[in-house]
Amino acid sequence: MSRVAYVNGRYVPHGDASVHVEDRGYQFADGVYEVVLVHNGRLVDEGPHLDRLDRSLSELSIKQPMSRLALQAIMREVVRRNRVRTGLIYMQVTRGVARRDHAFPKDATPALVITCKRIYQPKPEAIEKGVSVITIDDIRWARCDIKSVGLLPNVLGKQAAREKGAFEAWQIDAEGNVTEGTSSNSWIVTHDDELVTRPAANDILNGITRQTILKLAEDRGLTFKERPFSLAEAKSAREAFVSSATAFVMPVTQIDDAVLGNGQAGSFTMGLRDAYFDYMADAAPL
Amino acid sequence: MSRVAYVNGRYVPHGDASVHVEDRGYQFADGVYEVVLVHNGRLVDEGPHLDRLDRSLSELSIKQPMSRLALQAIMREVVRRNRVRTGLIYMQVTRGVARRDHAFPKDATPALVITCKRIYQPKPEAIEKGVSVITIDDIRWARCDIKSVGLLPNVLGKQAAREKGAFEAWQIDAEGNVTEGTSSNSWIVTHDDELVTRPAANDILNGITRQTILKLAEDRGLTFKERPFSLAEAKSAREAFVSSATAFVMPVTQIDDAVLGNGQAGSFTMGLRDAYFDYMADAAPL
Repeated sequence: MSRVAYVNGRYVPHGDASVHVEDRGYQFADGVYEVVLVHNGRLVDEGPHLDRLDRSLSELSIKQPMSRLALQAIMREVVRRNRVRTGLIYMQVTRGVARRDHAFPKDATPALVITCKRIYQPKPEAIEKGVSVITIDDIRWARCDIKSVGLLPNVLGKQAAREKGAFEAWQIDAEGNVTEGTSSNSWIVTHDDELVTRPAANDILNGITRQTILKLAEDRGLTFKERPFSLAEAKSAREAFVSSATAFVMPVTQIDDAVLGNGQAGSFTMGLRDAYFDYMADAAPL
Repeated sequence: MSRVAYVNGRYVPHGDASVHVEDRGYQFADGVYEVVLVHNGRLVDEGPHLDRLDRSLSELSIKQPMSRLALQAIMREVVRRNRVRTGLIYMQVTRGVARRDHAFPKDATPALVITCKRIYQPKPEAIEKGVSVITIDDIRWARCDIKSVGLLPNVLGKQAAREKGAFEAWQIDAEGNVTEGTSSNSWIVTHDDELVTRPAANDILNGITRQTILKLAEDRGLTFKERPFSLAEAKSAREAFVSSATAFVMPVTQIDDAVLGNGQAGSFTMGLRDAYFDYMADAAPL
């Protein structure tokens, strides 16, 4: 069955889903996006994702393309038309089409694109083995809290990881601390069984999965702290993992050349991963 | 007469010029661009612009969409079809269309869009009066030497300028030095009649007009230096101006609240502007 996309008011075959060349998303990266997971026919953290979309738009003074209720109806229709039970919804809002000029156009209508595709999870053996990450300088702009489509540094970082056979690239700030991955947040577990992740500020994206994991940790009485951690600390940590809407809680067993623990996913991480799956199973059906 | 755009092998009415929603330019700002001036039926600095396009593509490991000769033929055809005597050519190359994934796709074909539009120059009185600039923190990424479409910080900066009635926003680095404008390079003239502009490195775009001005200054035996200059020095400079392919040499007579000299375009700047117009008049006809 062929895929269907929603583009500015119309449901179209995926192959025909197009935007004007003067859409400011194309010429200026003047837009934002969200990725929402569809898990067994349920939308995971839909509300928080839409809240963050609103915040990103607000930070850039882009008008909301429509009411939240209307947006939610389209999300569901896109999922339905694509017959996706487990996959992801990709939604992008840009400032719209206007004659090219850096400053905001006076009369542009925000553009909205929503697509949906199936995704497949790694096998349990792969999860047990964990993934490796490389490290790179964080060369991004100062407003990484805005989930903009200006992802070129993330693209270059992910490609660097791919070329070294790694799952992700952790970005390192000028102080030698880990900011985050190119499409995921970074976490470590100390030898005192403390869960650590960098506080959300302008230099990282405050992941929705990140926030959910913090809530799950709190609910379970785990010790956790939001504080910067250095690359050196990460390399000598008991465990590490990355989080994102599509990777959930993914064990990291190697950082550059440093193998963590016995090179297998640790129990703290796997406990959180299980907790996250339980949490997803409780999401409201579509 | 309606405008015509070149999009991936076809000449299409401007209104129909569209790209797929999974063009990586739209989802990742994974592309670069150039703006080439058409001045009285001549292309200004065509070679250097195409050289820089090649460099930007190379830095991002994006393949060239076609040979230079083919590209030049299309540029001319777009100018011709749009009947532009004085205007600009906008050309954008992205990594192409691929299923969304941060890392480089294996088999994407680079996308190429070329448009052309007329532009009009300010009246001589406006040039004599000069323009004002505001200043903002430079919040951009560390590779501003790549002319990528990741222009969101530039958009925000230009909008901030617009809201204050200014022509441009000069970006200030952590040391208090001026890097450049959001779509132009920054220059000052000291009280010793020395022309100063920041050296081209990873933190600014090495403007083609910037390079031409340096050559013109050298040809004319003017004293000039490529060195960083502070905002304080700029505010107390004898003259200042911005340069770009479309603003040429534009006198700056106010920086934030500081009025430069007598608040009118200075003779050093106007001399360079005249020299630049002479230079443009010598460009090869299309």
